[in-house]
Amino acid sequence: MIRLFIPHDLAAGADLALDPGQSRYLAAVMRQTVGDEVALFNGRDGEWRSAITVIGKRAVGVKAVSLERPQEAGPDLDLIVALVKRGRLETIVEKAAELGARRVRLATTERTNAERARVERLTLIATEAAEQTGRLDVPAIAEPVKLEKLIADWPEGRRLLFCDEAGDAKPILNALAGEPGSPWGVLIGPEGGFSPKERAMLRALPYAVAASLGPRILRADTAAISALTLWQAALGDWRS
Amino acid sequence: MIRLFIPHDLAAGADLALDPGQSRYLAAVMRQTVGDEVALFNGRDGEWRSAITVIGKRAVGVKAVSLERPQEAGPDLDLIVALVKRGRLETIVEKAAELGARRVRLATTERTNAERARVERLTLIATEAAEQTGRLDVPAIAEPVKLEKLIADWPEGRRLLFCDEAGDAKPILNALAGEPGSPWGVLIGPEGGFSPKERAMLRALPYAVAASLGPRILRADTAAISALTLWQAALGDWRS
Repeated sequence: MIRLFIPHDLAAGADLALDPGQSRYLAAVMRQTVGDEVALFNGRDGEWRSAITVIGKRAVGVKAVSLERPQEAGPDLDLIVALVKRGRLETIVEKAAELGARRVRLATTERTNAERARVERLTLIATEAAEQTGRLDVPAIAEPVKLEKLIADWPEGRRLLFCDEAGDAKPILNALAGEPGSPWGVLIGPEGGFSPKERAMLRALPYAVAASLGPRILRADTAAISALTLWQAALGDWRS
Repeated sequence: MIRLFIPHDLAAGADLALDPGQSRYLAAVMRQTVGDEVALFNGRDGEWRSAITVIGKRAVGVKAVSLERPQEAGPDLDLIVALVKRGRLETIVEKAAELGARRVRLATTERTNAERARVERLTLIATEAAEQTGRLDVPAIAEPVKLEKLIADWPEGRRLLFCDEAGDAKPILNALAGEPGSPWGVLIGPEGGFSPKERAMLRALPYAVAASLGPRILRADTAAISALTLWQAALGDWRS
């Protein structure tokens, strides 16, 4: 069944008009007609089986029929990723949504050479990935912030997995063994790695856990996917 | 240092002419000149620090100077992947090279709708990823084979990690706990999953281990990267 993320409130019998993009997608791309069912979610009210009631010129109308899955939250896991080239950043956002990150926070570091990201476009990618992967929320994408500022404002009680390619860090499963569950952040550096000053700052943080991602050099998108995967398998919702 | 995979034999003092693509890359793209150093590897003789001796009209000449890393093999790990859309297949091959798969074997299944792949192009992608990631070989890419045939010809003693999204399979780290090391194959199905018949066949294999990749639906590229990552972390060369 087609899944759509919508901003509207959802409750039994709620009548909604979908936005132009979703209306066109349902009617023109997926050739849906009145009576066909879609699944709707908004990040607050769970997933609702819904029926198409109107295929209008401007909008498709749907009515929420029954709650199929009550709202639930995955682990409180942030991915913090240094700005990398657009294609790889888009891959990272898509995969963060599939791998259950609650938020993607963009960072600038000494070795990033971009300062901006297309947050609106990244949010669209996160939304489509959330629809496809079956989760009940969409990861929030935050505007880029300097790594130093991000660390200065770090929330109390949240641990930080810091992928340290350059150092003598423990293998990641060893580094995570015995650690508590969420909230966590997973930090991925830029393609050129962190600067020595940044590494020293990160390694000195009492809440940070340095980990190695194996003997080969990984691109930033690979490192992000691998680190999120291992976090989910060791401490997150991939456990039994 | 720039790393290049070459077909030539490597030994101290060996004089080589690079092919037109690599010559153009060094001279025109990377603006290298006589005396600059590159690292060469061929999958057999280790990695050699080498010096550019000639920037010719047709070819760049290099001389192998010293063995920097003796040849070594990573774990004997095959990725077997059902044919998926070209972009995602190219991502999978790039990531398989970064994540240390020794071979990528392409499979057709009941729910794949392609029969062919551009193996030459995929080999180029694997080669560039191997150069970038620092490994000493390039994963071999095999022409697509039917899944049934692949299983019929399965080599004795090789175990198979089978990512079973549909079933009641154990979480992947639990499924791999206590398993022996390589040789292994990691099998990733097509976007539509395996057919019931294929699942039954796979689950009946005495050398197969079924595993779950968490509660969300993963695209084939994500599943491949996650499964290779977890295999390397649990049984491969990401351990200490």
